[in-house]
This record gives sequence, C-alpha cells and structure tokens, in this order.
Amino acid sequence: MRISNLKLHSIAIADPPLRSSYGLHAPWALRTIVELETDDGVAGISETYGGEGPRAALEAVRKFVIGMDPFQLAGLYRKICEETGTAADIPGGHTQTWLVPGENPLDQDNRTFAALEMACLDIIGKAVNRPVCDVIGGRARDRVPFSAYLFYKHAGGGGDGHYEDEYEEALDPGSVVRECRQMIDSYGFREIKLKGGVLEPASEVETIRQLRAEFGRAVPLRIDPNCAWSVETSVQVGESLRDELSDGGYLEDPCPSLEGMGAVRKRLLGQGIDTPLASNVAVTQFRDVPRARELDAVQIVLSDPHYWGGLRKVQSLSHLCDVLGMGTSMHSNSHLGVSLMAMAHVAAACPNLTYACDTHYPWQTGKDEVVAGGRIRFEKGAVVIPSKAGLGVELDYDQLARGRERYEKIPYRRRDDEAEMQKRVDPNWKRVVPRW
Amino acid sequence: MRISNLKLHSIAIADPPLRSSYGLHAPWALRTIVELETDDGVAGISETYGGEGPRAALEAVRKFVIGMDPFQLAGLYRKICEETGTAADIPGGHTQTWLVPGENPLDQDNRTFAALEMACLDIIGKAVNRPVCDVIGGRARDRVPFSAYLFYKHAGGGGDGHYEDEYEEALDPGSVVRECRQMIDSYGFREIKLKGGVLEPASEVETIRQLRAEFGRAVPLRIDPNCAWSVETSVQVGESLRDELSDGGYLEDPCPSLEGMGAVRKRLLGQGIDTPLASNVAVTQFRDVPRARELDAVQIVLSDPHYWGGLRKVQSLSHLCDVLGMGTSMHSNSHLGVSLMAMAHVAAACPNLTYACDTHYPWQTGKDEVVAGGRIRFEKGAVVIPSKAGLGVELDYDQLARGRERYEKIPYRRRDDEAEMQKRVDPNWKRVVPRW
Repeated sequence: MRISNLKLHSIAIADPPLRSSYGLHAPWALRTIVELETDDGVAGISETYGGEGPRAALEAVRKFVIGMDPFQLAGLYRKICEETGTAADIPGGHTQTWLVPGENPLDQDNRTFAALEMACLDIIGKAVNRPVCDVIGGRARDRVPFSAYLFYKHAGGGGDGHYEDEYEEALDPGSVVRECRQMIDSYGFREIKLKGGVLEPASEVETIRQLRAEFGRAVPLRIDPNCAWSVETSVQVGESLRDELSDGGYLEDPCPSLEGMGAVRKRLLGQGIDTPLASNVAVTQFRDVPRARELDAVQIVLSDPHYWGGLRKVQSLSHLCDVLGMGTSMHSNSHLGVSLMAMAHVAAACPNLTYACDTHYPWQTGKDEVVAGGRIRFEKGAVVIPSKAGLGVELDYDQLARGRERYEKIPYRRRDDEAEMQKRVDPNWKRVVPRW
Repeated sequence: MRISNLKLHSIAIADPPLRSSYGLHAPWALRTIVELETDDGVAGISETYGGEGPRAALEAVRKFVIGMDPFQLAGLYRKICEETGTAADIPGGHTQTWLVPGENPLDQDNRTFAALEMACLDIIGKAVNRPVCDVIGGRARDRVPFSAYLFYKHAGGGGDGHYEDEYEEALDPGSVVRECRQMIDSYGFREIKLKGGVLEPASEVETIRQLRAEFGRAVPLRIDPNCAWSVETSVQVGESLRDELSDGGYLEDPCPSLEGMGAVRKRLLGQGIDTPLASNVAVTQFRDVPRARELDAVQIVLSDPHYWGGLRKVQSLSHLCDVLGMGTSMHSNSHLGVSLMAMAHVAAACPNLTYACDTHYPWQTGKDEVVAGGRIRFEKGAVVIPSKAGLGVELDYDQLARGRERYEKIPYRRRDDEAEMQKRVDPNWKRVVPRW
C-alpha cells in the first residue's frame, strides 16, 4: 500500500465574533482538509489549520508523501524535520505568547506532520478495520468528555450574515451565564472553561462566580486569559477565585512566561491556594515540559493532536506528564468534525487525561460541516468513540466544495485577531500582554 | 478478531557458567514462549522470562486474554494492573539491586503485559502484513546495532555437558580479550560491553585497557559491575578509565542507588571526567527517571521490552529520555530469537537509541533455538529488520518440544545466581553490594 495522491482543500467556515486577549475572531475561520489516497483504494482524511502558511508547509513535503507507505510515519517525520529545520531550536522564545497556534513557526514541522499522520492513521484504521484509537494502542475510555468553552462575544453569528447568532452578545457576566446554560442544555457538558483576558479582571472574576452560583460545585470551572494578566493580577485573581477554581478547575496561562507562572504558583501556594496552573502558551513543545516542572510553573499541560506533532506524540505527552506528576487536558481551535474525531480518538487512547478536553465545536454550525451525515453528536458532553474503522467519519464533497468556495471569496489567508479587532471594534487596539 | 487460545511453553536453554555480581549463571536458563491464537486463524508469539513466577503471572490474567481483541492493549494493561496491583508503589526500594529482572516484583505487571503485547503486535503485524516496528509508528532505522556482551566465565558450555564450550574459560584480562575477538569475528559487533563486578576492580580496569589496546578507539567500551563497587571505588575506576570509557562508552550501575550514582557523577565531573553513567538497576520504572535526572545520577537509561512494559512503553521511555536530555541503550537477559526480534523491532522504532543494544544471544546456541530456520543472523553486529510481517519469526515446534523436555528435567524453577555460585564455586559465597 502506497500513497498515490495528496489533496488539500482550503476552506472557510463561519466563526462568531468571539473575543480573547489575541483580539477578535474574524467572520470566517480557515481550515485545511487533507485527503490521502492509496494505490489499493483506501483513502484517509484529516483536518488542520487553514490559510496559506499551513497549506504551503504541506505542499513543501508532498514529495515525501507521494509513494510512501502510510505505516512509515517515523521516517516521514524525520524527513519533514530535515527538510525545513523548524523543529530545531529557534531563537525568539515562546512565540505562542504572541501568535495563535496555527501561525507559530516553532511547531510548523509538528503541525505539518500531524496533518499527514492523522490521515495515515485513518487509512491504517480502515485497512485493519479498527478505530484509530485502537490502532495506536487501544482505548483507555470509550467516551471522551469535552467542556463548555465560553467566550465573551459581540452580537453576530459569524460569516456573511446568513448564519444564525445562536448565542447572541455576551459581554458581561450575566450573559455569559446564559450562554453557558444554552450550551450545556444542547451538549450536556459537565466542565466549563471561560476564555478570559477580555473584560476587566474584576468582571471576569464576577463571571466565574456567577457561573459557580448557577451550575454548582459539581461542575469544575477554568479560566484562560491567554497571558492578559501580570503576576500580581494573576495572584489576585487566584486569591479571589480560590474556591471557585478548586474541585477540578484550573487557572490557564494567567500571565506570560514560565517564570511568571512559576512566581504566581509560588505566591498562591504560600497562601495555601493550590489551584493548578495549566498552559498551552508557555508549554507548546516537549522541551518546555521539564522546565515547566522544574519551576512548578505548570501542573496541567494542554495537548493538541494538531500542533504537538500528531496523535502518537500526544500519547507521548500524556505519558510524559504522567511520569512527571502532571495532568493533561486538550487545547482546541475553531474546527469541524474531522478534527473533533481525531481529538476524541487520541484522548480515548491516553490513560493520563485528567480534565475534559476543550472544543470550539459549538461555535461552528452544521451549515459548514464537511463530515458526511452532518455534525458529530455529543452524549452528556462526551463524544462516544464509534465502532467504525479509522477516524469514523467521511467527507461530504458537496459541503467541502462550499467550504472551498467560501475560502475563495474572502480576502485574508491567515488568522489575525488583532487586525480584526482594529477593523471591527477599535482602530487603535493592540495586543498587550500583560494588559492588566 | 478475538484471541481464542493462550499457550505457555516453559523451556530451558543451555547457558554457560557466566559470572556477574549476582553470582553464577546456572547450566540452564529459563524462558517462557507465549503463543496466542485468534478466531480468524492469525497467531502471534512472544518470549519472556522463564520459570514459575512469570508463568503464574501470565496464567493469572488468562481470563482477560481469552476473548480479547488484540488491538485493545491499553485495556489489557489496565486490567492486569488492577488485578494484581503490583504496578502500585511497593515499599522496599529498588529490588533490582538484589533480584534479577525476571524476579523483581516491582515490574511484574509490566513483564506480564509485555509478553502479551509482544504477541498481540505480532498478530497485528501479520493481520496488516507489516513488520512490528512499522505497526508501532514506523522505523527510525532498518539495522539495529548490538554490542559484544563479554562475561568473565568458568570453563564449560552450559547445559548437560553436550554443549560445546565455545568461548572457554575467561577469568583474566587476556582471556576476555580472546573471547571478545572470537565474538566480534563471528558477529561483527562494533561496541563492547564487559559484565564486571567479578574480579578485583584493578583486574577489571586492566581488562578494559587490554580491550582498548586490542580494538582501538573506534570501538566504544562499557563496563557494568551491577553495583559491586562503593562510591569511592566507582570514582577510582572512573578516573582510571577516563580515556577508555570516553568516545561513546559508559559506566553502568557502578554502585548501588541513585544517590550513590549521583555522588559518583558529581565527583567525576569535578575532575573534568564526563563519562556518562548508565543504569538498569537504579532505574527500572518510569518513576525512577525524573529522580535520576534531578540527581544527574544517570545519563543513559537501559530500556527492555520485557520488563519496561512492552514495546510501546519502550518507545515512551526513549521519548521521555530524549525530552529529558538522556540517552538510551537496551538491557538484555539470556534469550532466544523471538526476544531478539522483539528487541530489534522496538529499537528500530525508537528515534532516540543512542547506543548499541545489549544481547546475550551469542551465549546461547542453535541447539536450543526455537525459531524456525535456526538462529537469527547478524550483519556487521546488527540485526536487519526483515520485510516479513509481525516479528518476522515463527516457531519450530520440534525445537520447542525439546525445550519443554529440558525444562521438565531440571530441578529449579527460578533463576538464582547466588545459589549456583554456592553450589559450584564457593559454599560461603554471598551477594554483597558493594563488594569493593
């Protein structure tokens, strides 16, 4: 079995005007759908970051993909790293503090490989008639829990105005509680994550308090301001929310850098507050993990099969964290059902998954879903691993064509939340970390 | 595909009178050959530690194996750990300082699982028509280098007197050099390991010096006295062999405990001697690795698919060591060709394999080999990964039957090098660590 064709589909999907410390989500999020075909007729699919950069990186390694045996993944990874060299140590520090994951040059090779590995594992799963989670070692769980991922948002449903504004404007604590109730009613999530770094810290603290009041102690809460706070502010928020973020909650990337988070951790512990700190900004590569542990800066690492180098690398990360006494959760970006299934499969195959995974899935709509049969269903906040082979989903080619058409119509080719914020909200807005 | 049968074959294989700090190898080494059959006719094999203990541990989990899908390995591991609980933290410290690997209660679950995983991966490889190394992620290399594993030994070829004494007595430096020449001529090894802890340290230092004089700087040298030395003696040997153990060599388990090795490392570094320290005694489980790094006690971890919990766990270990800036090599016990192929497959699938693997294979003979077609061949000291599916070897059932007959005839059911030493060499001999 050899790979005979690699098809890349750049698509755009409607994305509501969600806010974060990076700025504002543009009306369309970009994704790339990857198709691999083999000479014996088994095909595999995957989904990854969109726009020009990720696509060009995939095009650059097409020569290694065509003709390869889909089982020879270690060799493909080595070739990709040798070709571009971006997996090597790049000066400039933690670019994910400044750039969104799909645009971080430090993980380009890992992203590129991951998109190909995901499709190869889909092929292998189909070849052996097993779900991907079983191909990579067997499942530790059949149901993968996800969390309600709440955003402060402006009015609007994203896209071109033909998309429903399902969750309406939510720029204060009360409307976020409403948003959450709506999302939990639809999906059954049992953990809650709030994307912060948008309002004054006091308002975000109040949002968390109102969420606790509404949903009770049985629903763990986490807040992620993406480095918007100073060490001082982070400590203050940690103090204010010492109760609300306990019981399975966490504080994610409150401030920039491992050193900053280490200082926050030390000061909180000094007051007897052991709220764990999570990260997908200060810890984006394996070499960050031992340093994070040395500084006690991070107790929970957010994995992601898209930028950590694929599903098997996420398993390695989960195991590494287990060995180092750290927990794991999973990061998400705006995505469709192919990514959701890849996330579910790898999460199923990681014994050390200590928190429900993030997902942006509720923010996308069935109008844009490229998975045949429509959107993936959640059962009580979880994705149930299907018995189907591979990732368990196929493409709807009409839907895919519509995604390509949307992509062709829009003017931008990479995600830039700062530019969008300037365009729609405040022409003088700049990403500042820490802001408060 | 479900597993319909589990067959365990306890066999004995001739083992020459090899010495180590544990004592003396008995005339027969014990192994267990595992066969798994599936309801669709694909069978898988593996090889693990022998005697009553390992067999009983496998029998105890038969109920989980029969009826299982061979892909559901994570679930099998969880069930084994839950059943026996020996993967939990057991008081008593590093029992591998005192017990040989197959008898260490700390890794019983990992050993039991590993034997089953190996056979399941053989099944999966055959089902997808791929070598095992490709099933678990693809190969990083096609040729797996092994080292010449030298022992001080008494005269005799092992077994019942019908086995040739191929390497003759070797109880002084000169005869070990002769032994090494003979082994390298036959196998083409390009790295050399000396099992020490047998003669006075000065004689073992002299042995290493004569090996260097004979084989030159291009052939890396390592010595492993299995904790026979004090910190003081370890430092003295490190000083004496600062030149000989450089250039890709290492000092393995010179003294007991991570603390002891950390002290040796510190004192050697203080003198500008950066000979790396390796371990398969102080580091036998994942939780030992971070502590080993913290103390800078170990720079090279010896993996082993038999007691580290199988092939995928060895991949995790290799990756963990890479992340922590540590190298890896591979530990060996007296074994036949099934184990050799499992070792080769996993080593092929570990990008971070920084030293040639150990193997006792030259000490066994074709008379006892259970692999159809006879002994595995080495090319220039390496095992070449075959293109055949699975582990790439099948059983010779006549040879297997002979192995079972030998096992039935001998009186002992576990390895006890101390008892053998008392019986054959010195009735008052006791294992003492450190001895010098």
